[in-house]
Amino acid sequence: MANQATGTLSGAARSAHSIIAADQVVGTEVYNSAGEHLGEIHDIILDKESGHVVYAVMSFGGFLSIGEKYHPLPWSVLKYDTGRGGYVVPLTRDRLENAPMYDRAGEPDWSDRTYGKRIYDYYGTSPYWM
Amino acid sequence: MANQATGTLSGAARSAHSIIAADQVVGTEVYNSAGEHLGEIHDIILDKESGHVVYAVMSFGGFLSIGEKYHPLPWSVLKYDTGRGGYVVPLTRDRLENAPMYDRAGEPDWSDRTYGKRIYDYYGTSPYWM
Repeated sequence: MANQATGTLSGAARSAHSIIAADQVVGTEVYNSAGEHLGEIHDIILDKESGHVVYAVMSFGGFLSIGEKYHPLPWSVLKYDTGRGGYVVPLTRDRLENAPMYDRAGEPDWSDRTYGKRIYDYYGTSPYWM
Repeated sequence: MANQATGTLSGAARSAHSIIAADQVVGTEVYNSAGEHLGEIHDIILDKESGHVVYAVMSFGGFLSIGEKYHPLPWSVLKYDTGRGGYVVPLTRDRLENAPMYDRAGEPDWSDRTYGKRIYDYYGTSPYWM
């Protein structure tokens, strides 16, 4: 993921690195600040009308998707760490266990903004629609 | 793609249908208003900073990606047609041939906003950053 590099880049180069293909995001590993591996990016949820990314969905656990759990994360909490080659989120394992999640049994109702706000609140950020 | 349905939905149901996974967008067929098949969605290009979709990239032609051409399209020009089960863009084949495109030989410099503006101009829309 060469275009994920950050650091002491000039303004122009930095803007270059602001653009990324969804294809490159999906499959990227996710760690917490302590360096523990939490999961990987499973999918990106979009708002068709506004063209905004609503969530990045992180998956973890399970085998061949059996028993896998999915956490919708506000896009803004993902910070790319070039050294680690993955995203870092400010989330201990304990915090992760209590975070909003779903499994194969049922996707959340993405249109439910109360649910949406709960996710953003959990991560201490504001929904892009507020 | 059940969640792509539109039509005479109530406001609440309609908002439900505004949310979609990137995974469901990629691979969706693209047609023009005349019903001609133009290609399919190959990838989605995101602005990491703002969390905006910058382009949907449509691919067409080629075989096993050899000779394939890629067209970046402003997100807003894609309209989902439930009857057809794909996106419809206001683009004749002639217009498509002259549209900004690239091939495997080289991806455009996505950070170049002059290039970006040319794409948006070609499709008669305004870039989200303007």
